[in-house]
Amino acid sequence: MEKFEVNILGCGSALPTTRHLPTSQVVNVRDKLFMIDCGEGTQLQIRKSRLRFSRLNHIFISHLHGDHCFGLMGLISSLGLLGRTAKLHIYSHKGLEELLKPQLKFFCNKLPYEVVFHTFGMKEPELIYDDKSLTVTTIPLEHRMPSCGFLFAEKQRPNHLKSDMTDFYKVPIAELYNIKMGADFVTADGEVIPNSRLTTPSTPARKYAYCSDTIYKEDIVEQIKGVDLLFHEATFLETEKARAKETYHTTAKEAATIALKAEVKKLLIGHFSARYDSDQLFLDEAQTIFPNTVLAYEGLCLPVE
Amino acid sequence: MEKFEVNILGCGSALPTTRHLPTSQVVNVRDKLFMIDCGEGTQLQIRKSRLRFSRLNHIFISHLHGDHCFGLMGLISSLGLLGRTAKLHIYSHKGLEELLKPQLKFFCNKLPYEVVFHTFGMKEPELIYDDKSLTVTTIPLEHRMPSCGFLFAEKQRPNHLKSDMTDFYKVPIAELYNIKMGADFVTADGEVIPNSRLTTPSTPARKYAYCSDTIYKEDIVEQIKGVDLLFHEATFLETEKARAKETYHTTAKEAATIALKAEVKKLLIGHFSARYDSDQLFLDEAQTIFPNTVLAYEGLCLPVE
Repeated sequence: MEKFEVNILGCGSALPTTRHLPTSQVVNVRDKLFMIDCGEGTQLQIRKSRLRFSRLNHIFISHLHGDHCFGLMGLISSLGLLGRTAKLHIYSHKGLEELLKPQLKFFCNKLPYEVVFHTFGMKEPELIYDDKSLTVTTIPLEHRMPSCGFLFAEKQRPNHLKSDMTDFYKVPIAELYNIKMGADFVTADGEVIPNSRLTTPSTPARKYAYCSDTIYKEDIVEQIKGVDLLFHEATFLETEKARAKETYHTTAKEAATIALKAEVKKLLIGHFSARYDSDQLFLDEAQTIFPNTVLAYEGLCLPVE
Repeated sequence: MEKFEVNILGCGSALPTTRHLPTSQVVNVRDKLFMIDCGEGTQLQIRKSRLRFSRLNHIFISHLHGDHCFGLMGLISSLGLLGRTAKLHIYSHKGLEELLKPQLKFFCNKLPYEVVFHTFGMKEPELIYDDKSLTVTTIPLEHRMPSCGFLFAEKQRPNHLKSDMTDFYKVPIAELYNIKMGADFVTADGEVIPNSRLTTPSTPARKYAYCSDTIYKEDIVEQIKGVDLLFHEATFLETEKARAKETYHTTAKEAATIALKAEVKKLLIGHFSARYDSDQLFLDEAQTIFPNTVLAYEGLCLPVE
């Protein structure tokens, strides 16, 4: 199966601890790296991982809180020192470019590559990235400031040709492309050979949804329906439900409820508040609602499957 | 002896590695914490140490390169989340406040404490901090941009009274202060009792000098003469001496030469370039010139003595 993995670089909330760093993830799709959020220490975490800086071209920022973007300056600066020449694309709500520009100009005035800022709205889902194998769409969330998640969707690959069958039916080379894309074949005698006899289906396209930071928001269920992996923030436990609501965050139980309603295959929780001594508490709470839940931790590499 | 320790939080150069983080140190003088430089990841390193955020009130920035100050935003923000109310004083060359202000306003708009920016010149030594037990003076360095080090000097404490002797000579209480400060005592009979018979000397005042980033600069020798501990950058080895000069950095051998000429008691080297696989190479090179050299590493806590 083609590579589609989520690497956790940091999964704490605003206040870092000895266990957790501020938020950052790298989604590896066929060795193209897509970063989601870039808290302080992100470049240090990449150093510790097997991820290669040169494979990273796109960074998506969920919202403009410091724990999701204070690592950008260091990362941008180091990519320059590493001799990067390829453009680096950063996607965020409006405002980030204005905040970074003065520092970029001062600290990175000899950057050998270009940083390209892209902005997106936060009200409706927007397609913000599209290549031959992947799309990335925003997932509007609800937080103390405009915030959105990201839906990574593989494109369905063509079916695999059964070469023994295409040989048997003497399919002309010119027809092979259409058959891979699902067409039936009509022989010289007019016989219709159904596509299913000529091909085997390719792996179903996979989806990963990232949702942080947000209050419990059922509106997102429709958009993330059936995804293979859902990352959802679980900053608090149910015992701090009032605090969660007040700060526009989610409890572990609420994250699991979203996973259940959206019928996702697996739930990954993170963005843990520094107030708790054990992450196991989050897992226990979530699993009462959605058993196929796993805990994020720094260094985790989880395949989307 | 009163506490006077240097804690290394990061001692790499601009490009962090799996071994070294960007520059930051905390000087602990009698449990008051003074930070020197604040590279990315500094707050994470404090978390790992036994240092207490609440004891930190003063941060000195040597120069405005990112690897010496990209950790400020995260640290300032987290101190706010920790409920700090005391002012935080940041000392640097002019320009830092203008660079941080827009981000402070946006990301830290509800900070429960005040950040006070102080600026200093870079041409002449300037006294930038003075309390009852310590002074901090800048050490002008030479780098690709204005840069300076910091000289931490303990104030000499009064002598200790020998109470058996002051009792014996029936020294009035009103005279004790002057005697502690070094005065002789004249008895009612007119006999002069020398101070040395009435007191024992207190521990000699200690000095710590921090010099990074800089090209080899003999001019500093006079100012750091005889310090108990000298931190000097050693970004390169002699094999890269040309590169050191070109980038306004120092080699390990040059750092040791400064230590030798300044007759310091101990040399601590750091700011190691990411290009070398082993720090031992720096130590070996420095020790050929100045044997009492030690290597900085993250987590080191070195007493000034």
